[in-house]
Amino acid sequence: MPLSQISMRKGKSKEFRRAVMDGIYSAMRRSFAVPDDDRFMTFSEFGSTNFSYGYRYPNVDRSDDLIIIQITASNNRTKEQKLALYKAINEELVEVGIRPDDIFINIVEVLPENWSFGRGIAQNIE
Amino acid sequence: MPLSQISMRKGKSKEFRRAVMDGIYSAMRRSFAVPDDDRFMTFSEFGSTNFSYGYRYPNVDRSDDLIIIQITASNNRTKEQKLALYKAINEELVEVGIRPDDIFINIVEVLPENWSFGRGIAQNIE
Amino acid sequence: MPLSQISMRKGKSKEFRRAVMDGIYSAMRRSFAVPDDDRFMTFSEFGSTNFSYGYRYPNVDRSDDLIIIQITASNNRTKEQKLALYKAINEELVEVGIRPDDIFINIVEVLPENWSFGRGIAQNIE
Repeated sequence: MPLSQISMRKGKSKEFRRAVMDGIYSAMRRSFAVPDDDRFMTFSEFGSTNFSYGYRYPNVDRSDDLIIIQITASNNRTKEQKLALYKAINEELVEVGIRPDDIFINIVEVLPENWSFGRGIAQNIE
Repeated sequence: MPLSQISMRKGKSKEFRRAVMDGIYSAMRRSFAVPDDDRFMTFSEFGSTNFSYGYRYPNVDRSDDLIIIQITASNNRTKEQKLALYKAINEELVEVGIRPDDIFINIVEVLPENWSFGRGIAQNIE
Repeated sequence: MPLSQISMRKGKSKEFRRAVMDGIYSAMRRSFAVPDDDRFMTFSEFGSTNFSYGYRYPNVDRSDDLIIIQITASNNRTKEQKLALYKAINEELVEVGIRPDDIFINIVEVLPENWSFGRGIAQNIE
């Protein structure tokens, strides 16, 4: 059920964007207890004015290839799982060619009852 | 105060998108204790590469007409109200022509003090 | 670490959009305990159909110049800091030419461990 919202500057190829999404999904599969086919992602592309970031906070060195990944997930993962997810996303996206300093991740947690995956029901609790 | 962020593939008519938003608002009005005119919605349209989803998780049958609805709301609704909202959104969007399996809903909850509806004040607590 | 997602109708100049983002960052710096260079913002522009809002809830008077600001931040600010942030954003954006009734703000709170600012680590807890 994680819902991932990915933001980057415009201009990346389709192949690159697909590889990014595949990498994030793969990282979730191996570190975040995400079942097979549980994949929901949007990729938003921004012009330079509309994508604004600090270059160095906190002690990193960002470039215009920054990727911002916001993941909404149920609040049933441990801190260790979150740390493992950051590490796994980092590994996957470095494979795709993104610099480690350009990988920004944020997790938003919600109750398991806060999802309906279709048909108007809350599959997690029914 | 719910803020609804709707995501779909590109290519739907204005009439359809308006009907979708009207349907979600109507569902909130009748099931989620949302007052008259409390309506804040964005609708984002994605190309095929940028909108990626699992076709069958968990035991549903999705198509490219998938709609992803993320609703940020105050944390003062019961589980029963959430279930009623999923059901009501489903009913409304089926009327518009969306298949039940294509309706994905996620609720993000925040404190009532986490909103300013204008004028730089927190109307819920002032 | 606040991640700010700004939504407005299409058609604003680059200078205006930059000034809006600078204003929000400045408001965070002076009221929300945000360190220097801790700035992460996206600005999304919507056509009229895709940006739908109540004109008067609750007792305000909105126009098509409505700005919706959703700020994801760690849950370590007080209610007083949130109220100060609303006031500061209001002051900054009025300077840019936005009407107070058109400034909608929502804060989503997450745990400090829910951020990785780069390199696959959780800087807030490591």
